[in-house]
Amino acid sequence: MARIYNFSAGPSALPEAVLRQARDEMLEWQASGMSVMEMSHRGKHFSTIAEQLEVDLRELMAIPENYKVLFLQGGATGQFSFIPLNLLRGKTKACYINTGAWSEKAIKDGGRFCEAIVSASSESEKFTTIPDVTGWQIDPNAAYLHYTSNETIHGVEFPFIPDAQGLPLVADMSSNILSRKIDVSQFGLIYAGTQKNMGPAGVTVVIVRDDLIGEADSRLPDVFNYAVQAKNQSMLNTPASYNWYLVGLVLKWLKSAGGVDAIEAVNIRKAASLYDAIDSSSLYTNPVQTEFRSRMNVPFILSDASLDKEFLTQAEANGFAELKGHRSVGGMRASIYNAMPEEGVNALIEFMAEFERTRA
Amino acid sequence: MARIYNFSAGPSALPEAVLRQARDEMLEWQASGMSVMEMSHRGKHFSTIAEQLEVDLRELMAIPENYKVLFLQGGATGQFSFIPLNLLRGKTKACYINTGAWSEKAIKDGGRFCEAIVSASSESEKFTTIPDVTGWQIDPNAAYLHYTSNETIHGVEFPFIPDAQGLPLVADMSSNILSRKIDVSQFGLIYAGTQKNMGPAGVTVVIVRDDLIGEADSRLPDVFNYAVQAKNQSMLNTPASYNWYLVGLVLKWLKSAGGVDAIEAVNIRKAASLYDAIDSSSLYTNPVQTEFRSRMNVPFILSDASLDKEFLTQAEANGFAELKGHRSVGGMRASIYNAMPEEGVNALIEFMAEFERTRA
Repeated sequence: MARIYNFSAGPSALPEAVLRQARDEMLEWQASGMSVMEMSHRGKHFSTIAEQLEVDLRELMAIPENYKVLFLQGGATGQFSFIPLNLLRGKTKACYINTGAWSEKAIKDGGRFCEAIVSASSESEKFTTIPDVTGWQIDPNAAYLHYTSNETIHGVEFPFIPDAQGLPLVADMSSNILSRKIDVSQFGLIYAGTQKNMGPAGVTVVIVRDDLIGEADSRLPDVFNYAVQAKNQSMLNTPASYNWYLVGLVLKWLKSAGGVDAIEAVNIRKAASLYDAIDSSSLYTNPVQTEFRSRMNVPFILSDASLDKEFLTQAEANGFAELKGHRSVGGMRASIYNAMPEEGVNALIEFMAEFERTRA
Repeated sequence: MARIYNFSAGPSALPEAVLRQARDEMLEWQASGMSVMEMSHRGKHFSTIAEQLEVDLRELMAIPENYKVLFLQGGATGQFSFIPLNLLRGKTKACYINTGAWSEKAIKDGGRFCEAIVSASSESEKFTTIPDVTGWQIDPNAAYLHYTSNETIHGVEFPFIPDAQGLPLVADMSSNILSRKIDVSQFGLIYAGTQKNMGPAGVTVVIVRDDLIGEADSRLPDVFNYAVQAKNQSMLNTPASYNWYLVGLVLKWLKSAGGVDAIEAVNIRKAASLYDAIDSSSLYTNPVQTEFRSRMNVPFILSDASLDKEFLTQAEANGFAELKGHRSVGGMRASIYNAMPEEGVNALIEFMAEFERTRA
């Protein structure tokens, strides 16, 4: 067995310690006589796992008591629809900041349920920046202000929490949740698919301030109604129980690694090393304005695109997987979430330098 | 490690061979250098797994080519809403057969999107039978006829496929899919959560005739739009990829066990043995009309309810888990899905007899 450095944008690399524990507990969890995936979700064993999951996430993110923590299905893409259905509460419009491909999807889907106002956009800058906040047009009658805290495809990340000018602030944190410290109390709702920084795919975390729920659209299915699921501990129906367990293992790993503060320091070092290597080379470039570069997803382009194929082939042969950039952007992308160790980033930097020296 | 006989109604026991393979492949799948849960869902490795999953399900159920096979999220409970949103196609009503707790939920949720006509009900018989088909009131202008092929809580199963009198027939097969041979071509749509006969929780299988899709309600989120997901191989967004893999392992196991015909023969034997033991005892009773008794979920009541607690304690001590009946029915329930070996059922029968001999 030889594990490789996996730079996939998601589903993505998991801590090896988590995989080892899942392997060791696969046939029997803690003298229960069964695998976690065989447990009744209403039984005593799984209840322990479910309660600990919420406790650990609340601790890691310092989630205030007046926020509900939900573990749902359907992905962040599902939430693009379920957020307006839950949060419009009789209003007819919502504001969105457009900073890339994922913002655009949220705007498109949200626009089927209300007037989706684009309060600011960096589309004309090809999504290489965050629009200047002094120009944001926020409608005070909108139900919420939505933004994407990290754009997985374009590699753009908010280094600050936007001022929603009194509206509930809604953030898609799928690709940077738990990677940096944030003040949850500044948000109305935070949501994230788990398949980048929290575990395998199949769980969608929703953290929502409790005064915002309970007035959902009557045509919203109960399994996606935040108030109903909050009342049922996210178990109105059978949850993706094994995925909950795996997310729980990742949270335990993060706690043992020192929590969000500690991992943020590592993430700052990893990203700085990789961007430095890109900026100091003459083969690789990253188009994003320096202060808005993502710590999680690092797209880079080879100045000679005819070398792309060879770069990927050589990378694969040297144990670096999933470096191909998203088709809409081209070039390469290294996703370096919490679970990517510093050694992996340093090894990639070395490989990139060697490739440049010998091939370019 | 000591694995026990787990009679949970779902999530439920899985074949030990499947768990062993998942364990052995946890850190690396087939020289890929990564766990299945770390794979990009658009990459070559996972594509192989996803394609094989559909091929195996089509083969096991002999699904005709004009049916789409989808692997979604949100559970069968989500489908209670998404079925009318996909299948009403401008019509304003749908027909439902009410045979127990799960039918009732489907009717309640369906009724939020259309007039849900109850064409027949066994509620007055306390859901211990299937309503006589000669009395079914099926409205020819309804969009479909829905029924629950096996009622997990009440232990009632259809031994036949209903005649929908020209309407598309829709079946919730969550708790008996792949347990018996069925002719898919008689259905408009079959759906099932995977957590009983197919794998862990977190995947919802939808098998739908292709002429019924493409006219969904405009307010249906794309991730639950059958036509959109069919066009995207159920990957409009990131699927519950590790769960797909595990379902795939269960399907491979079923194929190696001889397929649906072979497992049906085993299921007939298991159910017959257990019902025989119940009927020939003076302590245990099952209230369901003989011909409609479920092969999958066997509820039974102790004639002296004061023995319930001791029965469960003794069962647990002897390695039989999750025998407590659903709170709405009381007593006991043994769920004996495909993965429960005959030895498990025989051991339970022996324990029940011994308990009756010594305690009753």
